Amino acid sequence: MRASRPAVHPVEAPPPAPAAAAQAQGQGQGQGEGIAHPRGVRMKDPPGAPGTPAGLGLRLAQAFFAAAALAVMASTNDFPSVSAFSYLVAAAILQCLWSLSLAFVDIYALLVKRSLRNARAVCIFTIGDGITGTLTLGAACASAGITVLIGNDLNICAENHCASFETATAMAFISWFALAPSCILNFWSMASR
Amino acid sequence: MRASRPAVHPVEAPPPAPAAAAQAQGQGQGQGEGIAHPRGVRMKDPPGAPGTPAGLGLRLAQAFFAAAALAVMASTNDFPSVSAFSYLVAAAILQCLWSLSLAFVDIYALLVKRSLRNARAVCIFTIGDGITGTLTLGAACASAGITVLIGNDLNICAENHCASFETATAMAFISWFALAPSCILNFWSMASR
Repeated sequence: MRASRPAVHPVEAPPPAPAAAAQAQGQGQGQGEGIAHPRGVRMKDPPGAPGTPAGLGLRLAQAFFAAAALAVMASTNDFPSVSAFSYLVAAAILQCLWSLSLAFVDIYALLVKRSLRNARAVCIFTIGDGITGTLTLGAACASAGITVLIGNDLNICAENHCASFETATAMAFISWFALAPSCILNFWSMASR
Repeated sequence: MRASRPAVHPVEAPPPAPAAAAQAQGQGQGQGEGIAHPRGVRMKDPPGAPGTPAGLGLRLAQAFFAAAALAVMASTNDFPSVSAFSYLVAAAILQCLWSLSLAFVDIYALLVKRSLRNARAVCIFTIGDGITGTLTLGAACASAGITVLIGNDLNICAENHCASFETATAMAFISWFALAPSCILNFWSMASR
């Protein structure tokens, strides 16, 4: 027994050692990949995330429709008489500035091929998107309420620029619809890391 | 050498085996915990998540303020003449029903001490919260636009129930503010798993 063991042990003993080492290595690699791999998959894949062409397109669409809402509403001479319309103008200006600045960030990221997968940047984008989105939706809904009141409830479209008000409201809604995916994607990126 | 090995090996050999077994077990447990533990931490910790007392409180607050908005708005006899106010009533009814049903689910989960950390349930909660939240915010903003138009822009509060309209709008806003944390927490839970 004791004489045969040494012949058995060199066969028995080495496997556990490399296996354990491989296991330990595999664990370490697994952990390393467990951190590195899903991040790359989660943050890179969704088109529309900041720093991707789709994300830039969304930002440009937001800025364009907010600017359109602003231009159409500002083209009527009596919008300052209604608070909701003035608020729509203010919200559209804010939305346009925010989306344009993020579009420039996206263009920069695309030009230098640098990803925007920074935790702090994603957090700032999410909070900004949430605030501007809420303001834009609120302004669009307030304008829609007034527009429907003027057009359907009171039927005084003849004395008012109903078409302009409706167009501006619709543009603000479209801008919000373009903002929603950006906000959801950013929030998802922030939460899933 | 060969004679001493058998004496060494029984000491050397067992440790790797239990160690490897413990490692394998630890890995198994670690993996098991790697899946189970962060889940428990992520999904259990935030107060306000579904199935927690704070979550139940948020749901009851949403339902209460939506019901208050509904009651105050319905107490005025001329709300159907304005579309935005009718929309507020409809949105408040929907919000109240949704929040009450989720409050009952929370009460059930608390009574049977069962967690609501189900992926499908969280997904449904998030989508429902998002839809009702958007509708409630839209209704509140539309009503706010009309209320400000009546009260500040046109100064015809004498002929209208301005106080009731303002109260109902404020209640709808508070209901939305109570809904926002639920929605954000649910979305966070959904994204971080």
